[in-house]
Amino acid sequence: MWRGLQVREQSLLSLLLPGLRSRGPRLQCQAAIRALTGGPGPGPGGLRGELDRFGGITVRLGQLRSADSVDPATFRTWLQGKCEQWRAEGRIAVWLHVPIFQSQFISPAASLGLRFHHAESDASLMTLWLGEGPSRLPGYATHQVGVAGQCPSFAQSNNFFVLFSGLIIQTKNAWKFPGGLSEPGEDIGDTATREVLEETGITSEFQALLSIRQQHGRPDAFGKSDLYIVCRLKPLSFRVSFCPHECLRCEWMALAALATAEEATPITRRVASLLLYGHREGFDKVDLTVRELPALHRGLSYKLYHRDLPELYEKMSAMD
Amino acid sequence: MWRGLQVREQSLLSLLLPGLRSRGPRLQCQAAIRALTGGPGPGPGGLRGELDRFGGITVRLGQLRSADSVDPATFRTWLQGKCEQWRAEGRIAVWLHVPIFQSQFISPAASLGLRFHHAESDASLMTLWLGEGPSRLPGYATHQVGVAGQCPSFAQSNNFFVLFSGLIIQTKNAWKFPGGLSEPGEDIGDTATREVLEETGITSEFQALLSIRQQHGRPDAFGKSDLYIVCRLKPLSFRVSFCPHECLRCEWMALAALATAEEATPITRRVASLLLYGHREGFDKVDLTVRELPALHRGLSYKLYHRDLPELYEKMSAMD
Repeated sequence: MWRGLQVREQSLLSLLLPGLRSRGPRLQCQAAIRALTGGPGPGPGGLRGELDRFGGITVRLGQLRSADSVDPATFRTWLQGKCEQWRAEGRIAVWLHVPIFQSQFISPAASLGLRFHHAESDASLMTLWLGEGPSRLPGYATHQVGVAGQCPSFAQSNNFFVLFSGLIIQTKNAWKFPGGLSEPGEDIGDTATREVLEETGITSEFQALLSIRQQHGRPDAFGKSDLYIVCRLKPLSFRVSFCPHECLRCEWMALAALATAEEATPITRRVASLLLYGHREGFDKVDLTVRELPALHRGLSYKLYHRDLPELYEKMSAMD
Repeated sequence: MWRGLQVREQSLLSLLLPGLRSRGPRLQCQAAIRALTGGPGPGPGGLRGELDRFGGITVRLGQLRSADSVDPATFRTWLQGKCEQWRAEGRIAVWLHVPIFQSQFISPAASLGLRFHHAESDASLMTLWLGEGPSRLPGYATHQVGVAGQCPSFAQSNNFFVLFSGLIIQTKNAWKFPGGLSEPGEDIGDTATREVLEETGITSEFQALLSIRQQHGRPDAFGKSDLYIVCRLKPLSFRVSFCPHECLRCEWMALAALATAEEATPITRRVASLLLYGHREGFDKVDLTVRELPALHRGLSYKLYHRDLPELYEKMSAMD
């Protein structure tokens, strides 16, 4: 592989520096190649590319022996030579990891066509597709996930009738279920119970997933897509103590009233109907229940939600 | 608000430059403040902060009249003074938009405590929480969304028996349903039919959502979380022409065999069971169907998936 590259770079050099090939011994030629492209050894500050199993090359600026000793122009020259080399070798992409305090190397890399794949906290990742056709590199996270929790229960009305009620909050725009955005790494059910507790003071337990909404291009999601999941929870406490920063009001409301309330969002009304239906005919009519299964990635597991299966079917596939 | 700030900055200045307040006229004092903090007018290169409705300040480096005329040290001094000012004014956060070719300003901003919120393609967004307690700023997208499509149908076996079959592909690791990652802005059903077509050559139509998996910390998702959704599709063609880059084999397999096949992933087996159950008792037992509803954000709509409601309940909440 490296031999092919040397031949290619030597012919490039013959064009750039005519007479070079005929002039000197082999070592002299190799030194000239190294000076121009970063050569076969490590680049400035000890930089080098690592080949991954997909045929991409990773360069980590964090491995620079001293970032200050490498100026952006030297880095650019090295990276330009390397990109030429990697393309000639059939590599499909470059991944450049840039610690935030080495961001002076971003513009030079961008001038060679690299673009941000993503950045988070104190590092960014840039990439350049070297293969043929449009890029086949995986994208970054495309969705935020919001989760709301509904705690259907029986609550006494003012007239001492016991009503099948749900816990709702009133915000500036409408009545809706308590909920909020998933924290990184948080399970759907945990987001639901955490948000319900934070916003209403009610403790609860996850029961099932009821509904999923997908929406794109949300202005409040930095243009990304949003998945909003409504869960059915079992309330474990009943005394409301709501968060005044997040709600104007919070109360137990009869679900039959909520299902037709104009002040409620369309999703809130629909989920109220789902719960009434479940209450009368059995929640198994509306629930997606959860099971935890081992993942292919060692040591990891995942949560899988689907309709409950009758025992016959459950047993059939349960070799997990 | 600005008056309060001037008083605060003047007392700061009195500490830094003793005698300043007594020494000169009002104008001289204001010029000194401006020199130190960027003052009340625009900063270097015309930079200025814009107040948003949440009490945050946005600075756009793209509005620099000429980025080259502002050196990173001058920018740092201006931003440091401004951050002091905004904190004193009770602003809760700074959002700094950085076009990729102005990335030389990232390190100076980072030295003042700003960190990446996210970056994409040719821009990054940095942020600093100025309010009390831990940051309450919204995060960025946390999940990638993968979608698989299952096309249950009747296929003739080699022995001329007609079997209830599903379309599966064989990869290096296991047998599974065709599928892949959602493109930005793509609906769940569209991802399913696109991926099935790309991988198997079969055209199909979205019917319902069957199952959702959530998994965290995936090495192949840059450490982010993954939602994997399996859909039920209706096949519109039957001749397989699979993509050799993505599958080793692709075939129609009897779902009863797939539900117990060791070579299939646990999810594949479970979904095969769901489909057998649906085939025998009605797909309404396993489906989450979709409806499109208008969003609060003007001009946008969303797709909502849940269990079908009997007509009585459907009508109740359908004022959407």
